Amino acid sequence: MPTPTAFPLNAIRFTDGVLGERIERVGTTTLLRQWDAINDRIPGALPSHAVRNLRIAAGDVEGEFDGLCFQDSDVAKWLEAACYRIQFAPDPKLSAAINELVDLYERAPDDDGYLHTYTQLKPEAKRWENLRDLHELYCAGHFIEAAVAHFDATGSTRLLTVARNLADLLDRTFGEGPDQIRAYPGHPELELALVKLARASGEIRYQNLAEFFVRERGRSPHYFVEEANRRQEKQPPVWAYFDGQAYWQAHVPVTEQTEPGGHAVRAMYLYAAMADLARETGAVDLKRSCQRLWDEMVARHLYIIGGVGADGPGGENFSEPYDLPDDRSYAETCAAIGLMMWARRMLDLSLDSQYADVMELALYNNVLAGLSQDGCHYFYVNPLAVNPGETRRRYDCRMVKTQRVPWFGCACCPPNVARLLSSLGHYAVSKSSVGLALHLFAPMTIKHGDWALRVETRYPWEGEVKITVEAAPEGEAELAIRQARADWTVNGTAAGEAVMGYLRLLRVWQPGDVIAAEIPLPVERIRAHPRVTSAAGRVALARGPIVYAVEEVDHGGGLPSFGITRDAALSPRWEADAWGGVTTIVGQAVRELPPETLYETNLNLPRETVPLRAVPYAWWGNRGEGEMRIWIRDYES
Amino acid sequence: MPTPTAFPLNAIRFTDGVLGERIERVGTTTLLRQWDAINDRIPGALPSHAVRNLRIAAGDVEGEFDGLCFQDSDVAKWLEAACYRIQFAPDPKLSAAINELVDLYERAPDDDGYLHTYTQLKPEAKRWENLRDLHELYCAGHFIEAAVAHFDATGSTRLLTVARNLADLLDRTFGEGPDQIRAYPGHPELELALVKLARASGEIRYQNLAEFFVRERGRSPHYFVEEANRRQEKQPPVWAYFDGQAYWQAHVPVTEQTEPGGHAVRAMYLYAAMADLARETGAVDLKRSCQRLWDEMVARHLYIIGGVGADGPGGENFSEPYDLPDDRSYAETCAAIGLMMWARRMLDLSLDSQYADVMELALYNNVLAGLSQDGCHYFYVNPLAVNPGETRRRYDCRMVKTQRVPWFGCACCPPNVARLLSSLGHYAVSKSSVGLALHLFAPMTIKHGDWALRVETRYPWEGEVKITVEAAPEGEAELAIRQARADWTVNGTAAGEAVMGYLRLLRVWQPGDVIAAEIPLPVERIRAHPRVTSAAGRVALARGPIVYAVEEVDHGGGLPSFGITRDAALSPRWEADAWGGVTTIVGQAVRELPPETLYETNLNLPRETVPLRAVPYAWWGNRGEGEMRIWIRDYES
Repeated sequence: MPTPTAFPLNAIRFTDGVLGERIERVGTTTLLRQWDAINDRIPGALPSHAVRNLRIAAGDVEGEFDGLCFQDSDVAKWLEAACYRIQFAPDPKLSAAINELVDLYERAPDDDGYLHTYTQLKPEAKRWENLRDLHELYCAGHFIEAAVAHFDATGSTRLLTVARNLADLLDRTFGEGPDQIRAYPGHPELELALVKLARASGEIRYQNLAEFFVRERGRSPHYFVEEANRRQEKQPPVWAYFDGQAYWQAHVPVTEQTEPGGHAVRAMYLYAAMADLARETGAVDLKRSCQRLWDEMVARHLYIIGGVGADGPGGENFSEPYDLPDDRSYAETCAAIGLMMWARRMLDLSLDSQYADVMELALYNNVLAGLSQDGCHYFYVNPLAVNPGETRRRYDCRMVKTQRVPWFGCACCPPNVARLLSSLGHYAVSKSSVGLALHLFAPMTIKHGDWALRVETRYPWEGEVKITVEAAPEGEAELAIRQARADWTVNGTAAGEAVMGYLRLLRVWQPGDVIAAEIPLPVERIRAHPRVTSAAGRVALARGPIVYAVEEVDHGGGLPSFGITRDAALSPRWEADAWGGVTTIVGQAVRELPPETLYETNLNLPRETVPLRAVPYAWWGNRGEGEMRIWIRDYES
Repeated sequence: MPTPTAFPLNAIRFTDGVLGERIERVGTTTLLRQWDAINDRIPGALPSHAVRNLRIAAGDVEGEFDGLCFQDSDVAKWLEAACYRIQFAPDPKLSAAINELVDLYERAPDDDGYLHTYTQLKPEAKRWENLRDLHELYCAGHFIEAAVAHFDATGSTRLLTVARNLADLLDRTFGEGPDQIRAYPGHPELELALVKLARASGEIRYQNLAEFFVRERGRSPHYFVEEANRRQEKQPPVWAYFDGQAYWQAHVPVTEQTEPGGHAVRAMYLYAAMADLARETGAVDLKRSCQRLWDEMVARHLYIIGGVGADGPGGENFSEPYDLPDDRSYAETCAAIGLMMWARRMLDLSLDSQYADVMELALYNNVLAGLSQDGCHYFYVNPLAVNPGETRRRYDCRMVKTQRVPWFGCACCPPNVARLLSSLGHYAVSKSSVGLALHLFAPMTIKHGDWALRVETRYPWEGEVKITVEAAPEGEAELAIRQARADWTVNGTAAGEAVMGYLRLLRVWQPGDVIAAEIPLPVERIRAHPRVTSAAGRVALARGPIVYAVEEVDHGGGLPSFGITRDAALSPRWEADAWGGVTTIVGQAVRELPPETLYETNLNLPRETVPLRAVPYAWWGNRGEGEMRIWIRDYES
């Protein structure tokens, strides 16, 4: 008998604040708009053809496949997001759309369960011929995730049954058996989906298949090499220009991978699956590998906005350690979402705030930046510095958009940000055998089992957090609270020492108990490692998890020399009218006055003093096009 | 009756020093090695096939064309260089090779004079079908330049006759007449060659054709647009990704072009031809356009090493103003050579040291860097910063080599640096109606007409310059000497005021007269315009025309944080043993000690003090692979 996979999302209600408002906008605006987009109903936007492909496969309409080989995944991710949404906010329109898709998905697969409309509809395409590039298994993963979300949302096993038929086909097809293919997905995603499916269905085979995929990866004889030879491939695709098999995280077996590399989204999804399997199976080698990759990423590959991906023909790959350019950063919204997925799973492996800190950083900066204030425009690439003239003209910035756009030809990010925000409860709170753990601070209520908690806070704008226990299980139970550099009290009494950044409050809880803290939110200047050339001689401004940017609209152009002196007083300013309320950073900034000449021996350019108004990075670009930068000059005097 | 075109190169002998030694190495090593290269006789190197194509066209061997559509130009540029060399240093080996080529060139063209082995030998290629991309006219230009150089070197009209046959064909084919093609070269070069041919032959038609090509460019109806339509071209080639017709400097007529743009080498050759025509015809509009483009280039597009070309799919285009990245600079050797060619022609239009200053800067830095100390290895792209790991891994640095290489598949730069250095006399001295002008300071003798001058100096390492008049014409004559910030004396008496950076010494000269100065050569810190992000918070070190770089081999790695404090004492140091003697800059430098973490709120990283040894940029990379950078941190304290 299938069982729900995780914390039911309706247990957690974000009641207000930055996260609550974003989640609400996704639910009331973004999801409906995206439904129109994938149904080709947005005038002027590039047609997606994604739902239409499914209709053709289901036999409802005639036509040819159109779009990218992973076009199916846009529908699946949207469906997953919608199924998250209706768990905590029923919506007849969304439910109708969901049902429409369920009906299509029941009829679209081949008789043996195979589902990938690209391969099904393209006359020249054949199953399993190019597992490296054609995203069959990736799309299967996204569909399975959607099916599990649908089951969690509705209790119906209709979609789960379709997913199991597909997974059973995969389980028959792939493996170490004599007639099986020893392969793995070119784009990881299926692995973590199969772990979810195993939990939902109670069928361990799916998890075993996930582990097979993960452990077979990069082994010798090398599947992608042999497959490419069968295709008589003359040279690897341009996107693997430098990385070779590491582009697909398939250069060596995963337990031998020590540095995060290759396509950043693929890496995040793979590492997330490794963490899943380590949790489910207790595999120490996978856990160790995850930790090594995590440490290396955080120490040498992480953008200050909580993003990854700095180079490559498409820009989307990990580069060398410390190579974190700001003007041609990729920092794909999907990669930051993948990073959150991985971080959240690392928290399951080990309740250590290092993961929650990065997860929160990615959320408030790189992920939220991916979606406009109106909920209908998106960044795929998230630059840390923009100079519109240069950005538009420079070939190496060709992937960077200077403003959010309504949709993309490759539209992976929009539904991804929708499903992340619609399932944010999963990232805010987790349950353990002895209680609950709180990872994110936001105004919310948590009602699960015998627990009822109310979190009151204006974080991240203000530091005060008050958690009221409204109901608790009988007997001792643990509430684990991320410390966030604060001194916590329980009913006014110091709460004691944190363990790995979490207060482990094990006690008999009573209704009315109050856990409280004032999380320190000083305005901070942050410098990067001296090998990060884009940040040399520069600082970024941050306050709590929020990284700030300066924009031309507030300061005029010429931001490359815009900066602050060491003695400049900086303070937070609550601006109720800005985007419904944000805290900006204000103070005094300076900028060098542009000289006539390109080169001069006089080192001291005259400067002008200008009022500083730094805005939260995720909010940038909502006021027209202009220069923007995070790393501003650090003038010693 | 043909007449020699310019200053005979044997009138100027570089007797020693940086320039003399380089010129000698080119003559004794580089040219012979290149002759082997274009004859496919260097084991292990990519075969060039360039001479072989000519042999096939001449009917001496059977075979198919191989190489790029501009492969012919490698031979022509080599021949031009060799013909310069033998003007001042007779060499039987070179003369034999030259004669071999003359013989081939007499037999390779079609009966009507047409010469472009790519089109002649490729069965599918047809004349004049793709003037934008196929370099027919570019190759014609290089051949004509070689023919003029051969005539200047030998007095023989054999090659000049071949060139005239070709030019006559072009003159019949292109123009505004009813049966003529109103087109122009995709890669300018022919234009300046035709001006040379007109001078050598006394036939003004060639110059008129050059002017037609220059003025037709970018006019409406637009030839390249129509030609592309005839080819049913679906989209422009990737290299014109952003620039469109501006890639070919054909977006508007040249007299309306205000900002240097597009492919940098093409731009330099075009602007050089415009300056030629302005000089020959007195066309004020062309002169004005040249000056506007020059001013804009110097104020916003010039690398500190005297190079241009900062972006584009291949990296070789002008980018936005101030967009001068250091780690993915192109600064192609050919573009710097083109810049010298243009600058030299601007000096003919107006004896103003602003042109000589840039010409000298390009020569001592970007151009000399293109050739290794051994005379057999080349940079095509000249980076201003290298971190071998990043450079090799980053896709946007894929054109950058971390070390000089023996040859290139696209080998435009090696013979170009050979012809530039072998004709350097043309850049050092020019003649005017009233005398001579001296633009470059180097130990040399100048014997021309009634003039005999001896220049003694150790410039650019030492500032003292002594020019002795050993013979002079009777009566008043002018010697124009570039001032170079020095106080000049004539026979010990102050020489008076300079006009536009040149001392105009008009007097009756006597043997034994001495013009002398001590050119100030302080070690200078140079900062860039604050919009140049790669140089923000950084300085470059320079002394006279020499720009310096720091290398890992002298300082260890981690150069991004390597820098100097404002109070650091810097001094020049003559190092007799380094590459036969160079002046380095020494003093005390600092470097931040690398921390463990990627981001920190502590802004003051501990620093270590290290001895500074900055080497002349053009000499970098002669001691193995390692980090290098020009822009080093400018620590205020």
